[in-house]
Amino acid sequence: MTIADRWLLPDGMDEVLPPQAARMEELRRALLDLYYRWGYDQVMPPPVEFLDSLLTGTGTDLDLQTFKLTDQLTGRMMGVSADVTPQVARMDAHSLRRQGPVRLCYCTNVLRAKADQHQGGRSPVQVGVELFGHAGLEADLEILRLALSSLSVAGAGEIHLALGHIGIYRSLVQAAELDATQERALYEALDLKSPGDLAARVAECVSDPTLAEMFLALAELHGGDEVLEAARGAFAEAPAAVNAALDQLLALSAGVRAEYPEVELYFDLAELRGYQYHTGMMFAAYVPGYGQALAKGGRYDDTGRAFGRARPATGFSMDLKLLASLALQPPACDGIWVAADAAEQQAATIAALRDAGERVVVALPGQRTGPEAHRCNRQLTRSGDDWLVSPLG
Amino acid sequence: MTIADRWLLPDGMDEVLPPQAARMEELRRALLDLYYRWGYDQVMPPPVEFLDSLLTGTGTDLDLQTFKLTDQLTGRMMGVSADVTPQVARMDAHSLRRQGPVRLCYCTNVLRAKADQHQGGRSPVQVGVELFGHAGLEADLEILRLALSSLSVAGAGEIHLALGHIGIYRSLVQAAELDATQERALYEALDLKSPGDLAARVAECVSDPTLAEMFLALAELHGGDEVLEAARGAFAEAPAAVNAALDQLLALSAGVRAEYPEVELYFDLAELRGYQYHTGMMFAAYVPGYGQALAKGGRYDDTGRAFGRARPATGFSMDLKLLASLALQPPACDGIWVAADAAEQQAATIAALRDAGERVVVALPGQRTGPEAHRCNRQLTRSGDDWLVSPLG
Repeated sequence: MTIADRWLLPDGMDEVLPPQAARMEELRRALLDLYYRWGYDQVMPPPVEFLDSLLTGTGTDLDLQTFKLTDQLTGRMMGVSADVTPQVARMDAHSLRRQGPVRLCYCTNVLRAKADQHQGGRSPVQVGVELFGHAGLEADLEILRLALSSLSVAGAGEIHLALGHIGIYRSLVQAAELDATQERALYEALDLKSPGDLAARVAECVSDPTLAEMFLALAELHGGDEVLEAARGAFAEAPAAVNAALDQLLALSAGVRAEYPEVELYFDLAELRGYQYHTGMMFAAYVPGYGQALAKGGRYDDTGRAFGRARPATGFSMDLKLLASLALQPPACDGIWVAADAAEQQAATIAALRDAGERVVVALPGQRTGPEAHRCNRQLTRSGDDWLVSPLG
Repeated sequence: MTIADRWLLPDGMDEVLPPQAARMEELRRALLDLYYRWGYDQVMPPPVEFLDSLLTGTGTDLDLQTFKLTDQLTGRMMGVSADVTPQVARMDAHSLRRQGPVRLCYCTNVLRAKADQHQGGRSPVQVGVELFGHAGLEADLEILRLALSSLSVAGAGEIHLALGHIGIYRSLVQAAELDATQERALYEALDLKSPGDLAARVAECVSDPTLAEMFLALAELHGGDEVLEAARGAFAEAPAAVNAALDQLLALSAGVRAEYPEVELYFDLAELRGYQYHTGMMFAAYVPGYGQALAKGGRYDDTGRAFGRARPATGFSMDLKLLASLALQPPACDGIWVAADAAEQQAATIAALRDAGERVVVALPGQRTGPEAHRCNRQLTRSGDDWLVSPLG
């Protein structure tokens, strides 16, 4: 292997250099502080778990995204966390076992076996919040607000929020009594947003003509407020759960508008991302210039059932790496330079400056680079018997 | 698989719950801020690299500790980072390519295939600093000081610092013209601290009686200042490099004593930890009650050679998980409780309180747990037309 080969990194496994790493750290702190102020407690899920535990109730998509490892100690298969949310649901269900609403937040590296166009790289830093133990819309609205506040903290200007509700599709599937294969075929046609494909699949699988029309209508129901109106018409004879889902979307959009009037809202009733996982409202927030969503979330009740405790759950997550690219500032040139020969005798002064929060860079004997190379704009200089911090000339 | 099985975590792959996670976050910030003030720039190495790149020049110990993954995109073998230091050396050598001294710091999860008694769990959070581009003792002393300051920041009271120097053993091995097998045999005997074993190996491998005596003396050279005195005698006829190493240890210990007189210093000249890796002084810092070192470091010049740029290098690292257990405080009970029916009308007040840094927990309709369960010590209450923050009765 040549030297040139050795420093090629695997696709999507990025290193973060200065100043971008400092920007990410700053944003990490701002977000975790925001969540703390909203009452969310930080947790750190294990980076690796036994596969059975990690993938319980999460569906095949996550399985395919998960790197597998053999545990040398037990011979059992382990998986590297590819999504923190189910881990946090396990922590709520099993490790914490608290009564009432539980608010948790996290910021941690995850790994994904494959990059896809929706998720960016294979080594995102996942940051997000989860609210367990409350099934009401108030919890969903809190999560939506916190997602929008997170994007503001990150410096996002124009935010587009897409709202959907998995309950609509699920209720139609149930009413049409589809089997698993048919359900999958319809799901794929809707996911591809291909009208021809969808028409063919509906004709194959759905015998009831009213329900067939509703499946076809679903694919068209994306856009502004007119979508909810149109849906009322299209789903007038649908199961009650469909109209309950529409009521929820209306209430959530009103709640968002009241507090974030500047956010551009739209609805996508055929959006099925996270279908294997979500149980209620779902959302994705976009910013112009970014092809992928910057924040994604929704309701996913009862994930904890596999761990002995079914709980209502709602939350969202973001990729800190992506988010930090929103508002990259050039690094501050704000440090104090100390010449090598002054370092020993001025040890106390240097310590005092650092204690006061100053960045103090001590030159090492014989070094050829100067204060500019180390982002210093001031220096420690002798003035008679005293030492003073003075601007660099 | 039963429910009980599903929540068992692999040995050494821990989850961190509140309040310990908050304590770790607080310590992470304090340490990264300390390093910033000393002029260290944060970097984030990739969590996964191609194996050739990850293990270049690091020796077999790290290889055995590294989880291996197949890259689905290329078919090449990748490794999960088990030690950040060689990655940061690559970043300095290849990605940054700066002239002069370069100071870098990091705080990131790593994974280890096996736990051992020196390293704690298999999922440490490695935090540390590296100083590249300066071969002088000033750089080593800066690293030692920063390690001791880090332990103080973490709340360590009594610190024991063990100093060694790999140059002593290396020079003796070179003078005795040992081959790789003999070198390994002697290394293992010294590492086991078994005098009988060592005597047998030395008799086998070292023909020169003066050198043989020196190898045997090495095993006894651990303790206080008297060790350096004794070493001067034992190594009077040793190669010059051995005495240069002793000079360095003397200078470093004087430098540490001048600034940290309270630190308990001792020397261990037979300490060979990181033998495949280190090139000069080595240290480990201990705190009573902890069997393993809380900070470990030393000089490891020329690691970047494999990446086209040999550079002097010195640094240290710690496990944030272990460190955070030094001074665990009970969680602060410091939040403002808002009743569910007041949440909507008081949205502006709540936002203002959060903007001012307050932790505000909004009750959700119908929830049964009260303010105590959510660590609130105050509440938002109506007083005539106004709303006030008042203590909880």
